[in-house]
Amino acid sequence: MENKKISTAVIRRLPRYYRFLTDLLCEGVCRISSDELSRRMRMTASQIRQDLNNFGGFGQQGYGYNVENLKNEIGKLLGLDKSHGLVIIGAGNIGKALAGYSNFEGQGFAVSALFDIDENLIGKTVRGARIMHVDMFEAFMEYSDASIAVIAVPRDAAQQTAELICRCGIKAIWNFAHVDLVLPEDVAVENVHLSESLMQLSYSLNFAGSL
Amino acid sequence: MENKKISTAVIRRLPRYYRFLTDLLCEGVCRISSDELSRRMRMTASQIRQDLNNFGGFGQQGYGYNVENLKNEIGKLLGLDKSHGLVIIGAGNIGKALAGYSNFEGQGFAVSALFDIDENLIGKTVRGARIMHVDMFEAFMEYSDASIAVIAVPRDAAQQTAELICRCGIKAIWNFAHVDLVLPEDVAVENVHLSESLMQLSYSLNFAGSL
Repeated sequence: MENKKISTAVIRRLPRYYRFLTDLLCEGVCRISSDELSRRMRMTASQIRQDLNNFGGFGQQGYGYNVENLKNEIGKLLGLDKSHGLVIIGAGNIGKALAGYSNFEGQGFAVSALFDIDENLIGKTVRGARIMHVDMFEAFMEYSDASIAVIAVPRDAAQQTAELICRCGIKAIWNFAHVDLVLPEDVAVENVHLSESLMQLSYSLNFAGSL
Repeated sequence: MENKKISTAVIRRLPRYYRFLTDLLCEGVCRISSDELSRRMRMTASQIRQDLNNFGGFGQQGYGYNVENLKNEIGKLLGLDKSHGLVIIGAGNIGKALAGYSNFEGQGFAVSALFDIDENLIGKTVRGARIMHVDMFEAFMEYSDASIAVIAVPRDAAQQTAELICRCGIKAIWNFAHVDLVLPEDVAVENVHLSESLMQLSYSLNFAGSL
């Protein structure tokens, strides 16, 4: 499979290409040169050509890129042509915000259910998704085709939550707990460490003027 | 100033060092060798020594690192010895979740106020921080010492929100809108593009088994 050779750095840039191409399509732009795309994306044209050459043959000499084709091909690589069910463990501020965030659904991601241990939350719904007790998680997963689990529990509970998730066969974890999870090799994890991102800003402020 | 030479990659790793050192201190560990730290952080010991050498003299041959000193020094670099006021523009799901997230305050970040255009939200509070109309933002900032602005508005409103923020002299923006902001060079930005992070997981699922 050709995709095996694609570097992580390129993969990391794909969602951004996808976003720009979607915007272009919304503006009615059907084709674009790598020069024009580079201007909009603030990358060099050669970087763009190199990145996109990884997927072979989307651009044509003298014509440029067909925006819709390229968007669709990148979408397919990113698995956006399929729908993905999300389960969210932890129905606190972050968990509920993610469940209430409608934008994901436009990209094929839909929240199936939330789980918590707080009895006051059990039975409530967030944008149609029910909050259940975490004790129900394994039973729920027997019948659910959710493929992505979101960890939005306090950090002390994150590792055991991750283990529960893995026991149920889920292979993709979106981790909002501020901890590095220990996971089997075949489970993918994306960490969103909000505090660390905020600390980068604080660092910038600390050295503003001295840079 | 010595810090000028530190690479961005090293700076990016500082919050993670800070987190591990804080955990060690909580466990009562006073000193640690680079080998032991490397085992816990799953990095090579030579990478750790290289990183920390950037800040000079925190480790001692045969003794290892003094955990508290090292944590404090990294904290100072990250500006965590000062307090930072946050203003949040956009009091929707994400904005409110961030305002309700108490963990930031332990690190010197406190939310001063939220701003929105939705009249139904104006006057309400989230964990003690008031939601005001965005028309009040400039007036508020005349008397506020908030140094970090959070953009949690829909993407179509993000750029103009960023310009408003910059007009008020804020030099650090935490951007949750799914768009690349055009900003003056002296304004630092950290993007939290949740959709892009989710797409990475979707990509992993797409190619699971073929890797």
